[in-house]
Amino acid sequence: MTAHTHKSPLIVHRAHPLNAEPPGNLLQQSFLTPQQHFFVRTHGSIPEIDPSRYRLLLTGLVQQPRAFSLDELRSLAPARTVPVTLECAGNRRTEIMAVKPLGGEVPWGAGAISTANWLGIPLREVLRAVGVQANARYVAFTGLDEAPFAGETVHFGSSITLGKALSQDVLLAYEMNDEPLTPEHGFPLRLIVPGYIGARSVKWLGEITLQHHPSTNPYQTRDYKLFPSEVTAQTADWSRGKTLESLVLNAVITTPQAGETVAAGRVQVRGYAISGEEAPVERVELSVDDGQTWKTATIVERAGPYAWCFWELSLSLPPGDRQLIVRAWDTSKHTQPEDVRNLWNFKGYMNNACHRVTIHLV
Amino acid sequence: MTAHTHKSPLIVHRAHPLNAEPPGNLLQQSFLTPQQHFFVRTHGSIPEIDPSRYRLLLTGLVQQPRAFSLDELRSLAPARTVPVTLECAGNRRTEIMAVKPLGGEVPWGAGAISTANWLGIPLREVLRAVGVQANARYVAFTGLDEAPFAGETVHFGSSITLGKALSQDVLLAYEMNDEPLTPEHGFPLRLIVPGYIGARSVKWLGEITLQHHPSTNPYQTRDYKLFPSEVTAQTADWSRGKTLESLVLNAVITTPQAGETVAAGRVQVRGYAISGEEAPVERVELSVDDGQTWKTATIVERAGPYAWCFWELSLSLPPGDRQLIVRAWDTSKHTQPEDVRNLWNFKGYMNNACHRVTIHLV
Repeated sequence: MTAHTHKSPLIVHRAHPLNAEPPGNLLQQSFLTPQQHFFVRTHGSIPEIDPSRYRLLLTGLVQQPRAFSLDELRSLAPARTVPVTLECAGNRRTEIMAVKPLGGEVPWGAGAISTANWLGIPLREVLRAVGVQANARYVAFTGLDEAPFAGETVHFGSSITLGKALSQDVLLAYEMNDEPLTPEHGFPLRLIVPGYIGARSVKWLGEITLQHHPSTNPYQTRDYKLFPSEVTAQTADWSRGKTLESLVLNAVITTPQAGETVAAGRVQVRGYAISGEEAPVERVELSVDDGQTWKTATIVERAGPYAWCFWELSLSLPPGDRQLIVRAWDTSKHTQPEDVRNLWNFKGYMNNACHRVTIHLV
Repeated sequence: MTAHTHKSPLIVHRAHPLNAEPPGNLLQQSFLTPQQHFFVRTHGSIPEIDPSRYRLLLTGLVQQPRAFSLDELRSLAPARTVPVTLECAGNRRTEIMAVKPLGGEVPWGAGAISTANWLGIPLREVLRAVGVQANARYVAFTGLDEAPFAGETVHFGSSITLGKALSQDVLLAYEMNDEPLTPEHGFPLRLIVPGYIGARSVKWLGEITLQHHPSTNPYQTRDYKLFPSEVTAQTADWSRGKTLESLVLNAVITTPQAGETVAAGRVQVRGYAISGEEAPVERVELSVDDGQTWKTATIVERAGPYAWCFWELSLSLPPGDRQLIVRAWDTSKHTQPEDVRNLWNFKGYMNNACHRVTIHLV
């Protein structure tokens, strides 16, 4: 069914539902991630959809409920391209799991993140076409997949505020990097919510519902929330968890990889950095002496407020084992927490502790 | 000249120019800081201004330069009250100085921060009255004080972007907490820039200049910038420093104080937390085991997006020495760096490492 079951260069954490990420060296090969290297997060089936029969339903607090064909959507407004990085809220979860085990979550490394140029119709043009009632506050999205949740079968769903939905950069996307979406990336239509965790960018979009309250889909109400470290799966009161929206400031070393053996002398270190939408990445720094001193890396590529940046720095390193540490700063002068041990939460979300990679120099 | 030279409850770091902060227990007494307890940051003289002869000049890229009397300003538009916390970029500098010495900076503790209800005329109403030319990008502000800078005598000055200046909450303030400003707080008129470091809220405002570029005042171009840790006063290229604007996420324990002897058993811990304007404080946590576990404090008072919040937590603590650590999280799920040793910069700005207080329980 997918290109990933055989000869895929991705690390497949689970085949059913498919969850796979590119290794760091592959991630770093290209600022825009080719579709076949783009990380895949699915919660259930990958639906096979006949585009000629596909309809997107607009329902709820709208002036006029409607069902749009793909051609009707495309004729609504000019298409727009936005470079957006999608990052799973569980990116870098393995580091959290190493602190203390988690139950049953996908063990993402630092590759649950990828970037594409997304082409689509701005969501707000579709909302304009159907008319939004004055009491609508949230826009809920439902996928056409079938996903298990606590013993039930549901469609994946989520919601964002109407304010966010009216941003010109929230897209109903049908192409990434000039190619039609493949089935695992949401063919024929997916939502793209720039600056938010990947789970808000619902794939295989079937229905958009204007409503007064956030989505009641269990993937919104009982998943993708942040809890304090003293809360466990057994004690969690989901109504008190904090809904994840914006991405956090983060930076990762992709080259060299942890445990790699590298020739001593000049070592070229590379990686990515990302921030939420409020404040772009301003500076990336590396330390090879456990944070006592830091060197500023060069940001070599970036693309607007919603995409990662690529950075690199050439270091001179003697033989021996050496830990490299990276951190980013944003334009609001925030930097990252140092120690993942202080960020444990039972769902393993939002790990933005300074990334550490130990290499062997010979 | 000021109430602080005798019997002031403030800690006076310097008398000329006056720089003084309230101790933590005083800071925590009242959510709105009384004017006589409000921290004072000055760079030079405290001008004595006759309000009847005072004029505010509007110059530069305006349709019509003008000089406003105080009465004329007040008649321009309805006054507006906004609760705003002012925080010096050097708040908590002593912790940075303990890592490695700095040259000649004011050794602020954690009290270079205070909150007031500010009453004034929105700056944008004044800009509307004079008309802004289409090529204006920045609004520069000049004070009527005389301050030394690198051997010269200058007026303190700063600038903000025109976009920020057009926020309805940027005020030309003449009252704080229902009292006229005292001389040390900017009488008769000061700027209030919510969410930004205190240095942008220019006191004794004499002139507002619309221009295409940021202020060239040395307090803007060669001060209040953040540099990487490898840069020193000798090696700094000021054009490469990053201009400080937004406040960073921060939290401080004000009660008990460091070194205090406290009865073992139930200990009531109190403090403040603050964030920049983008994302409010969502959660405050305390650890008494060096970050291994955290308990969530109760936020007991807050007032809009630009003011600190007060929090408290009752802990049960056995006899012995104990380090309390606090950290805040914002609604974007950012938290703070742990270790001030990783935040050293030669001007000693923006210390938002987790605040640590060691107490003696008996």
